[in-house]
Amino acid sequence: MERKLLLTVSVILNLVFTFHILYKNSTTWNPTWTSRAAIEAEDAASVSCSGHGRAYVDGIGVLGGKQPPCECNNCYTGKDCSILLSDCPVNANSGDPLFLEPFWMRQAESSAALVSGWHRMSYIYQDGTFVSEALETVIRKLHSVVGNAVTDNRFVIFGSGSTQLLAAAVHALSLTNSSSLPSRLLASVPYYAMYKEQAEFFDSVHLKFEGDAFAWKNSERNDNTTQVIEVVTSPNNPDGKLKRAVLEGPNVKTIHDYAYYWPYFSPITVPADEDLSLFSLSKTTGHAGSRFGWGLVKDKTVYEKMKRYITLSSMGVSRTTQLHVLQLLNVVVRDGGDNIFHFGHETLKKRWETLNKVISMSTRFSLQKIKPEYCNYFKKVRDFSPSYAWVKCERPEDANCYEIFRTAKITGRDGKVFGSEESFVRLSLIRSQDDFDHLIDMLKKLVFQEGVEAHSI
Amino acid sequence: MERKLLLTVSVILNLVFTFHILYKNSTTWNPTWTSRAAIEAEDAASVSCSGHGRAYVDGIGVLGGKQPPCECNNCYTGKDCSILLSDCPVNANSGDPLFLEPFWMRQAESSAALVSGWHRMSYIYQDGTFVSEALETVIRKLHSVVGNAVTDNRFVIFGSGSTQLLAAAVHALSLTNSSSLPSRLLASVPYYAMYKEQAEFFDSVHLKFEGDAFAWKNSERNDNTTQVIEVVTSPNNPDGKLKRAVLEGPNVKTIHDYAYYWPYFSPITVPADEDLSLFSLSKTTGHAGSRFGWGLVKDKTVYEKMKRYITLSSMGVSRTTQLHVLQLLNVVVRDGGDNIFHFGHETLKKRWETLNKVISMSTRFSLQKIKPEYCNYFKKVRDFSPSYAWVKCERPEDANCYEIFRTAKITGRDGKVFGSEESFVRLSLIRSQDDFDHLIDMLKKLVFQEGVEAHSI
Repeated sequence: MERKLLLTVSVILNLVFTFHILYKNSTTWNPTWTSRAAIEAEDAASVSCSGHGRAYVDGIGVLGGKQPPCECNNCYTGKDCSILLSDCPVNANSGDPLFLEPFWMRQAESSAALVSGWHRMSYIYQDGTFVSEALETVIRKLHSVVGNAVTDNRFVIFGSGSTQLLAAAVHALSLTNSSSLPSRLLASVPYYAMYKEQAEFFDSVHLKFEGDAFAWKNSERNDNTTQVIEVVTSPNNPDGKLKRAVLEGPNVKTIHDYAYYWPYFSPITVPADEDLSLFSLSKTTGHAGSRFGWGLVKDKTVYEKMKRYITLSSMGVSRTTQLHVLQLLNVVVRDGGDNIFHFGHETLKKRWETLNKVISMSTRFSLQKIKPEYCNYFKKVRDFSPSYAWVKCERPEDANCYEIFRTAKITGRDGKVFGSEESFVRLSLIRSQDDFDHLIDMLKKLVFQEGVEAHSI
Repeated sequence: MERKLLLTVSVILNLVFTFHILYKNSTTWNPTWTSRAAIEAEDAASVSCSGHGRAYVDGIGVLGGKQPPCECNNCYTGKDCSILLSDCPVNANSGDPLFLEPFWMRQAESSAALVSGWHRMSYIYQDGTFVSEALETVIRKLHSVVGNAVTDNRFVIFGSGSTQLLAAAVHALSLTNSSSLPSRLLASVPYYAMYKEQAEFFDSVHLKFEGDAFAWKNSERNDNTTQVIEVVTSPNNPDGKLKRAVLEGPNVKTIHDYAYYWPYFSPITVPADEDLSLFSLSKTTGHAGSRFGWGLVKDKTVYEKMKRYITLSSMGVSRTTQLHVLQLLNVVVRDGGDNIFHFGHETLKKRWETLNKVISMSTRFSLQKIKPEYCNYFKKVRDFSPSYAWVKCERPEDANCYEIFRTAKITGRDGKVFGSEESFVRLSLIRSQDDFDHLIDMLKKLVFQEGVEAHSI
């Protein structure tokens, strides 16, 4: 009897095992040629860098068979980035958008892209262009869900970052100038330095950088016939203000740089509906390293000239990059941007509040102020959460604000770089959390020192 | 007794199953966050397109949940690319390097790259540059195993294709011109049209395209003080000849375009040891779509100016692309290039022989001839296997050779595009096997027609 029971149990167990194996084999996907790449990616991702760094599959030494090394955040060191360097200067200079990195780490599965060795080797897509149709579709969808730009009756053009598109746009518009004199490039102060730097370095016979748009408007040389190109950055870099064009008239062409017109940084007050608008992936998803941007262009002639510029300068954007960007933007649009924009906005709002609290204890420094506005995306009036602090040194003896901060071990960007005054300095608020925390620590010291000085007088 | 045996067998079977499951679980790697991307890539790769096309993960409709559609080779159509269009013109125009696609399909596992959603979001690598150190290392190794260029005492610079680097190099050299007159850009006929097109479109105040280097050498305007920049393409595009600089002297600067100096196309006679050499991934691995190129630069000032150009035009090359390129070049170098260069050279040698056989039956058309030379890479004297046929129409009445071919439904590239004569046409031999087979079919018809004509006289 006992033996019978044992046999029955054993046979049942065998059947269970058999089903388990059959069922598992039929439903588990067995990766074939993709597994090497996948294992390497997961291995790199699993390297612990103490939360103060990360390891990449293309890290130094990887080809020699080594484990990818930790690449530490600023001021952290050690094999696992666990050591905080004392007395380390904080980097608040560039607009490296790492505040969004934690979002993408959480979206690991949905945002990964596997590139095959034979992925789009041709110069052209099936339709003969340099542009992925799927990516163009998702970009139009993105603007429609965010409500920050009209894409109807617009050509979409891709570039290696909005940097390349800016050069293409300026060049294209300067070529539509029928006069023999070069077009003048203008932007109202304070402006993003790239406008000036590109124009001066590329030295086209058709273009001359002229500086501040307000100064030009009131200048005697403004004869209303000289061809001018005004770049309008809105929200503005460095101060975050929503800007409008200063100049108008039949001799004026305008480029709208909307790199920062996303719900993280600014209320979305109205869909942009301009002749020529530029956007950058760097400030859309935080992928500055992917070098991807796009433009919305109304006029066909201008679009064709920009396309010619992109063709002659790089024959379009890498197809590998376009594949990756498609994957990223698809993650953004599939929930209408809910996840990423809330995460990013909350992060920056908190940072702005923290910063304000520190600076408000000081009479030596002041921050830009902008009124809350209704945001069509969040469907509410929302506070300002800019990407940069535009700090003014208020004391006459603090003439060079950049130097004041540099001495306090905070590297910002000099106001002069933006065509503005030395009494201003730009501090980046969109970098990694480590950089921001460090910035606040150093700022507290600087402001505390002010209190001590006041006390000792 | 029987029951005892049954029980024993059943228990043993249980043990076997248990071991199987335990063993399998402990040695099988279970992909986690990478599996979605891997499955999608394998799904796309498994779409059958009858050998006359391929499906990509970023094909049209994929985001809507559809299976990636087949993208068919020229002249093939249908859902699975199985239908050959009759009377379809053959494309022998662009240098789309798809002859290497079958190689990469065979190297599926080693060449795949998985890009995480948070891959290198920053503007810069750990060392503050726009350049992957691992990729720079593998590029130096590549030149060392192939023996086609000296990399010692050279700076390596990356660009979005050699296209961008060419513009950067020309601009950098024109800026080192101390005279107030613009530098003249020259190349000996026949030359790659891009040199002229870039110079004319970008219209720098420091540069003027001047045309044929031989014409300039013999011209009265050649005063030996005017600053000139000569581009030397070797092997040459379109005719595959190993070229040397025409001009020399203290007023001459030279850019060596070595895009085609790889064992597929040319004997490697000597390692290039020039001041400024450019290379393109398109002709190294066949990945034209990846828009990646690099330069080897001796002079620090020139290198710094080129870097400034790349920074202001695109802030370096996409980090996603650099990751993919690293993977590809690593496959090339790990066996010293054996696999890829043999495959590619054999393919092109066969194509050239086939083409010669057809053209040799004609008196109406002739091909360029180049003597075999000793190749340091293959360690033997090797025949010529150029990327392009540089065809001459020999009859005086066939003045416009491009038109003769176009009428025969073969689209080449007009000799005039290369600064040469209308009696020449360039036919691309590095495209897909389908394109080449089609080209041979159409050429046979054209040559056969000639025989018929001769017969009917």
